[in-house]
Order: sequence, then structure tokens, then C-alpha cells
Amino acid sequence: MTEPADTTTNGAVALLKTVRAGGARICFANPGTTELTLVRAMADVPEMRVVLCLFEGVATGAADGYSRVSREVALTLLHLGPGFANGIANLHNARRAHSRIVNLIGDHAQWHLPYDAPLTSDIRSLASPVSVSVRYLDSVDAIEEEVSGALNDARTAPGAISTLIVPTDVMDAPAHAAEPADPGDPLPERVPAARIAAVAARLRESDAPILLLGGDTLTEAGIAAAAEVARRVGARLLMEPYPAIVTLGGTLPRVERQAYFPDDVLRQMGESLVILAGARAPISYFGYEGYPSRLVPDDRLLSLSEPDEDGIAALSALAEALADLPAGDLPPLPALPDPATTLNAEAVVQALLPRLPEDAIISLEGSTLGGPWLREAHRARRHRVMTNTGGAIGQGLPCALGAALAAPGRRIVSLQSDGSAQYTVQALWTMAHEKLPITMLIAANHRYGILQTELRRAGADLAHAAIAGMTVLDDPRTDWVALATAYGVPARRVETLDDLGAAIDQGLATDGPMLIAVELP
Amino acid sequence: MTEPADTTTNGAVALLKTVRAGGARICFANPGTTELTLVRAMADVPEMRVVLCLFEGVATGAADGYSRVSREVALTLLHLGPGFANGIANLHNARRAHSRIVNLIGDHAQWHLPYDAPLTSDIRSLASPVSVSVRYLDSVDAIEEEVSGALNDARTAPGAISTLIVPTDVMDAPAHAAEPADPGDPLPERVPAARIAAVAARLRESDAPILLLGGDTLTEAGIAAAAEVARRVGARLLMEPYPAIVTLGGTLPRVERQAYFPDDVLRQMGESLVILAGARAPISYFGYEGYPSRLVPDDRLLSLSEPDEDGIAALSALAEALADLPAGDLPPLPALPDPATTLNAEAVVQALLPRLPEDAIISLEGSTLGGPWLREAHRARRHRVMTNTGGAIGQGLPCALGAALAAPGRRIVSLQSDGSAQYTVQALWTMAHEKLPITMLIAANHRYGILQTELRRAGADLAHAAIAGMTVLDDPRTDWVALATAYGVPARRVETLDDLGAAIDQGLATDGPMLIAVELP
Repeated sequence: MTEPADTTTNGAVALLKTVRAGGARICFANPGTTELTLVRAMADVPEMRVVLCLFEGVATGAADGYSRVSREVALTLLHLGPGFANGIANLHNARRAHSRIVNLIGDHAQWHLPYDAPLTSDIRSLASPVSVSVRYLDSVDAIEEEVSGALNDARTAPGAISTLIVPTDVMDAPAHAAEPADPGDPLPERVPAARIAAVAARLRESDAPILLLGGDTLTEAGIAAAAEVARRVGARLLMEPYPAIVTLGGTLPRVERQAYFPDDVLRQMGESLVILAGARAPISYFGYEGYPSRLVPDDRLLSLSEPDEDGIAALSALAEALADLPAGDLPPLPALPDPATTLNAEAVVQALLPRLPEDAIISLEGSTLGGPWLREAHRARRHRVMTNTGGAIGQGLPCALGAALAAPGRRIVSLQSDGSAQYTVQALWTMAHEKLPITMLIAANHRYGILQTELRRAGADLAHAAIAGMTVLDDPRTDWVALATAYGVPARRVETLDDLGAAIDQGLATDGPMLIAVELP
Repeated sequence: MTEPADTTTNGAVALLKTVRAGGARICFANPGTTELTLVRAMADVPEMRVVLCLFEGVATGAADGYSRVSREVALTLLHLGPGFANGIANLHNARRAHSRIVNLIGDHAQWHLPYDAPLTSDIRSLASPVSVSVRYLDSVDAIEEEVSGALNDARTAPGAISTLIVPTDVMDAPAHAAEPADPGDPLPERVPAARIAAVAARLRESDAPILLLGGDTLTEAGIAAAAEVARRVGARLLMEPYPAIVTLGGTLPRVERQAYFPDDVLRQMGESLVILAGARAPISYFGYEGYPSRLVPDDRLLSLSEPDEDGIAALSALAEALADLPAGDLPPLPALPDPATTLNAEAVVQALLPRLPEDAIISLEGSTLGGPWLREAHRARRHRVMTNTGGAIGQGLPCALGAALAAPGRRIVSLQSDGSAQYTVQALWTMAHEKLPITMLIAANHRYGILQTELRRAGADLAHAAIAGMTVLDDPRTDWVALATAYGVPARRVETLDDLGAAIDQGLATDGPMLIAVELP
């Protein structure tokens, strides 16, 4: 008879083993002193992959990208309230993307908290706005319950963020690891048959309706099912304006993106009936005087599936319900644009379109390249696109980083505005450190283009010194090649249309990351 | 008879004029669409200085540095909850520094909020942990009251942070500017004579007491008054471990810094009576098993002045109360250290000591250079030092930036660890843009030194791959010269002891910013 092995260890090891057994396999970390027991514990839990980030917004954005691509729960490891705070902006986006994330936040020992040491802060107040639940691990006895709870909360359909605060005294205490079964993905709710029948009936009597797709329906299966419906009822396919992740290109039909400015959305929607499949009712991004917030009236809106429901099954069932109708053609594709003759955003898109490898993943941030790409993406090979779901800028590079770790072997392309790239530029270091195949195209126009667009729309004088001083970034111009080089990422500056294709070829052929700074007018 | 001028304008102009009239003259901004009416209003309020920052943590850290040096209220202008969130870490430090800051946070139009547009979040929950008050401007009629309230809150002795949320509909509405009188600095509370008498009595019977200085007593006047007390009672002068700003060098006596690790603090304090003058009772920075949080028992602690009281006057009165005692010598200075023979932190300090110009201001972040400098600072010309008050890293470069704007003509020196410099590295751009005389010495050791120190203390194996992977940053090494160059800041790498002095000479002779990357072992 052998003695049972002594499985006593400390809270940190128990926590990591428990969360790993529960299905989380990667942790994006920027630890500090209160997390050092967890850092040491990583040596005892080698099956947990740890990715070091030099700024917390990189860690949270990478967790978001990882979860969007894999649909798994990603962990972050952050340092008390202030460290966590640096990660909030990208968690705001991750919450809007329904990404599955568990934040582990180290905290002072419980007995040290009353003394208000320098790093003490109200972590719960900071975490609540981006978390479906905020848990506090007050004892090693609670590890299994709190870890399972946090993982389950994160897996709440369609996905959410849970935060678990772990004080150092609990991490240091003797503990046994639990091994909760990985419950796997929860099944989304099925859409009731009556709702599908009601949508089918309404579609039969509608003229040129719109299917507005979001969430799970922006997968290959969802779009294919939606196209079947569209062929029967003469519908147009639209996507929500900022999808977490959408499959486009290849043999998939073109999916038009919901516009940004309210006048454009009103024009786009016209008098059509709008069927929502995993998408929210169209609203204005910001509130503009003279425009309603809600851009389609209730009597022209009908929901087929909510974000927490199985929209793909609902679309398939809807197509079946309409199968008696003749299958027509989808709307004709828009005419091919003229080839770009100068180095501008359209030129970047046109150069990338034929070069993008099958099953690439694009992380898209900023309106400069974002709009043009999504207009033409149907002409590329099949790929996926992640967009900025919550409007907190600094998402693009970290999201690309997370996607690369979630999809080994795939090419990741970052189409990135220069202004927003600044907020989490430290992502470059982790890309180099992990040697990830990420090709970045930075739209280097050295200004806050979206602010200039909004100001122009409002009739402001862009040349006024006070206004230019807040929107123009050309004194000095950021040298993106030097910046990338500083972090160990090879880089190349493109200043002519002729050089663009060769630079993209080089980037796509590079094993690791490469940054291409496209100097735009 | 002339017609009265039409003074109707919009809420944004009225807000800026009101806050300017109330005494705030500078705004560190990273605006987005919800702040564009305020951006346009800047053209109408040219007496407000606006400083553009490429990341919100730069804006809040710069506001902190500006307020520490000037004691004025500094404004920030930030973009809804996610933009504000990026500024929280440095506001955490600013709160601990008692800096006077009013955050202006743009928000959606009130009528747009119910639609939960992408950037909507719970700003109040995010702002509360770092704000003495969070106000919401729901009407132009409330501008005078809310602005005055926010400014007064920020000026609450010894200084605080107030947050004012400004929705776009109020900024766009017709409004009249108010001109509240600038109330100027509030007078701190005077310390009651009875308390001073009690401290004097206790000091007369104490052997080798300690005067632990903090807040206002770390000014030239405060330290001089404390030195008078110390000479009468044979006391040692100590400073709180992380002063917001302290004057050192020149003819001032040496002030010993409270140590970091609890065993060092226990040794340093010995059995002495500790008189607190604007400082908090010594506590352990983190909680360590086996050590108390509070490091000096109550019966050996006596408070002369609280942070919101006039500590300088209290020390002067205390000196008067003890004037009958003979004035002795202050403790002898520690022996001069041996000149450094290799390129290490001591070498950097020794090279800077004789070169630092009179009235320079040092922004100090990180233990690598921070400890060595504060041990030897008495040997430099008179200067001020700002330290990281709250432990949220990424403070050093922005704080230097803010100090430079608060003290035109002064040389600013940043003594900065490389790990923490990453968090707000975008500060370099604003330094170049504003051509500020900031000489940065980056301790480039390519690791998280403080984490290694803590892990070593806890007996961890630093060479273990899992632990090294979280603490060593040398794959790749950040190229600080390339990074500075990317942002338009001249830079130089120092790899030998011989080159160090010349590099510092060059930096101090440069009109604008310069970064010196000191490659440390």
C-alpha cells in the first residue's frame, strides 16, 4: 500500500490548478508584489500558459482577442486597483464583445487592508462597471466555489467578464487544489418556434427587408443561413457596426456594415423592416442634436434572436420556414472601385485584398482603414475580422496579440490607426517576445482623423490653432519604424504606392511580427 | 449709450471661462468626440493653456506633477468612462500626493444615455475611488455652482481630486459664463498650542527621538524649522517614504528616508519616540507574514501636525517652545561612499550629484535609482524631489512633464526605472512637442528589479523559467534610444562609466528633452 501523496500546497497553487482544471489555459499577466505568490505558483502549474505584458491594457486586450477567437475563458493577472485600472478600457471593449474573461487581481493581505497602505484602493468600485460579478476570495476553503463561480459567470451566454480579488494571505495559506470538471461551453438558449414563425410571417409580407446580423450569426454558418433567408424574401444582409468577430470573404455573400453617422444609418435602413439576429436595435453611436438615438422605429423592428440565444439555429429554422418561396439572387455586388492612384486608405485595402491568406484574422481599429476594409472584405479569401466593440481605443494591437495565441498557424493582420495604436503600444514587445505572426499596417496620418471628421461635420475651423493643437499629431511625427524597432519588431516605412505591395508581401512572409508604417496624407 | 455686449455663448465656453476665473489655468487633455464642443471652446478661451497628451495616464500624471510643484489646481479633460479609466492609476498617486486636480469628463448627451451606446459606462463608479467628489453637470444653470464646488473640493486642505462629468447636451446649450472669484489657497488649520506644548514636554524627556516629516514640512521652511527642533532635543530628521515633493540639498540638513521593508523600518526606528509632522504613522508597504502592519507602537508615536494642518508653523512654534535648551549638532553625515568603479545605480547618482543645477526638480520613479539618490541628495545643490506616492507605476515621466510646465526655466531631471517607464511612455511625445527641458536617466536593467528583490527575500529561485519569464525583460531588450527617437526626443545610450558624465552634461545642456539610457547590469 502506498501512502497517499501529500497534496498540500498553498492558495496560489491551488487557485491556479483549480482554474486550469476548470478550463482556463492561458493567463495574460502584469504582476506586482501582491501577485508574487501566484508568480511562484506558475512554476508548479506549467500547464498554465503565462504571457507577460508590459502594460495592463495589453493584457486585458489580449485576453479579449484570445476569447473572441477561441471562445475559451482567458485569464488576466493584474496588480491591485491601480494595475487593474489600466486594464479597464480594454475590458470595456471585451464586455461589449461578450468575451469570456476572468480577472485575477492581487490585493493586500486582509489583515493589512485597514492600514490604508499606498496601493490600497476600492477595487470593487473600479471592477464593477466591466464585470458581471466581482468576487473576493477570503479563504482557501472558498477557492473551489469562487473559481467555479467566476468561470461559470464568464461562460454565461453569450459570454461575460468576472473579477476575482485574491488577497496575499489567502495565496500564502496552506491549501488543497480542487479539480472542478471543465463544464465546457454552455449551450445558448434556443429561440422559441413561435417567434421564428412570427418573423417568417412578417417577412412574407415585407418589401426589401433587412437582416441585421450580430454576435453568433456573424460566423460562417450564421451568414450562410442568413443568406438562405435573404434569397427567399429579397432581404439585404447587414452586420452590426462593431462586431466582436465576423467571418467574411471567400464564398460568403457580402454583408453590408451598419453605418456610423445617424443620417447614413437612416438612409441605409430606409423604410425597411429590420430583423435583428443577435444584433441590437440600431442606435446612434453618439447623440447628435436633431437625430433620434434609436434609428429604426419599433414598428419596423423585429427580433429573431437575442445575443444570448442560438441565432444560427434560429436563422436555419427561419430558412426552413420560408423554403416554399423561390430562391432569388442576393443583391448585386457594388461596382469595383477604381484602382487607387495615390497612397491612401483605399490603396492599402486594395493591396491587401488579394494577398490576405485564407483563414487570416484581422484586428481592425480606427476608421481610416476600418471602413474601407469592411466595404471590400467580400473580395478577399475567407477570413475573420475583429472590431472595436466598445469604442475604448487601444484595442487593436492587444487584440491581435491575443488572436495570434488563440489561433496558432494563422496569419494575423492588424489594420490600425496611428492615434489609437499609441494607447497600448507596449503590445509590440510581447509580439516580439512571443514571435507571433502579426503583420501590422499602421495608417500613419499623424492626426486624430475621427475627431477632425466630427469637427468638420459640426462646422468647426480645423485650421484654428487651438483646434489643430488638439487634433494634429505632426509636431513631432511619431517615427513608427523606430518605435517598432525599439520593441524588437522589424519594421518598414511605406511612402509610395509602388512600395506598398512589396511591403505587405514582406510582412506576410515574415515568421514573426512586422510593422508597416504607411505614411498617409 | 452702447448696447450691452451679447455674452450668450454655449455651455462649453461658459464652463472653461468659469473654471479659468476660478483659478485653474492649465488643462491636460486627451479628448474624444464627446469633448469636441470643449475643444472648440478652447479657441474662445485662449487664456486656458491646453496640453495635448497621447494617453490619459500621461494627462493625469502631468496634472499631478503640475499641482505638486505649483500647488495650483490642474485640469484634465478625458473621454467618458474608458478614457478616464486610463487615467486612474496616476490619479491614485495624485490622491496620495494631495494634488489639486479637477477632472473634466465628457459624457453622452443625457437623452442619449438610456440607449447604452458603445461608450456608455458607469463613470461614477470608476471615478469615486480617486475622487473626493464626483459631480454631474445636468444643466448650464449649474455651471457656476458645480465648477466652484469642484474647485473648492480640490482645494480642501491639503489638496484633493474632484471629478466633474459634463454631458454633451449641456456643453452645446446656450449659456452665460460666470466669473467666480479665485478664492486662492485655503489656509491650513493651525495646530492647537496645547498639542505643541504636549509634544515639547514629551521631547524634553525623550532620548534620541525622531521627527518624521511629511507633506508641507518637507519644504525648505519646514525642514529648517524641524532642524531647529532637532538641534535642541538631539532628534534625527526622517522623511516619509514617498513624499509628494521634498526640498533637499544645498544648505539643508540631511533628511533620512523612512525605509521600505518592515525589518529595515523596525531597525531604523529602534526604541525612539516618533513625532509625526505631516507624516502618517509608519506602516509596512505590503503586509508580510510575521511583521505588524503598524511599525511603531502607539506609545512611541505622537502627532504634531496632520496633513491638513500647518506643520511649518507648528514646527516653528515647537522650536520656540524648546528655545531654552542648548542647540547641539545634528547627527554627523554618513561617510562618503567609495566612488563607483562600474556602471551601476551608485555611479549614476555620483555623476549627477555635482552636476544637478540649483532649483532643479527631480521626478523619481523606481527603486533602482530612487533609493541611492535619496541617500545622497543632501550632497547636491538645493533641489526638489517628487516620488511615487501611491505605488501605481507609470508616474515618473508624466510627473516630470507636469513639473516642467509648472516651473518654467527650471531643469527637470527624471530618474526612472525602465519597467515603470513603459506604462506612460507616450509622455515623451508631449515633452518633445512642448520642448520641455527634461533630462531623463533611464535605469535600463531590463527587468522588474523590485519583483526580483521581493522574490529573493521570499526565497524563490529567480532562475526558474516560469519566474524569470515574469520578471526578466531582456528578450528583446527595449531599445530606449530608438523609443525616444520615435517620439522626437534626442537620446543617447551609456554603456560605460566613462561616458556617463559627458552624457549627463549633454542632457543638462540641451534646451528641450533628452533621454539617456543607462545600460545597467
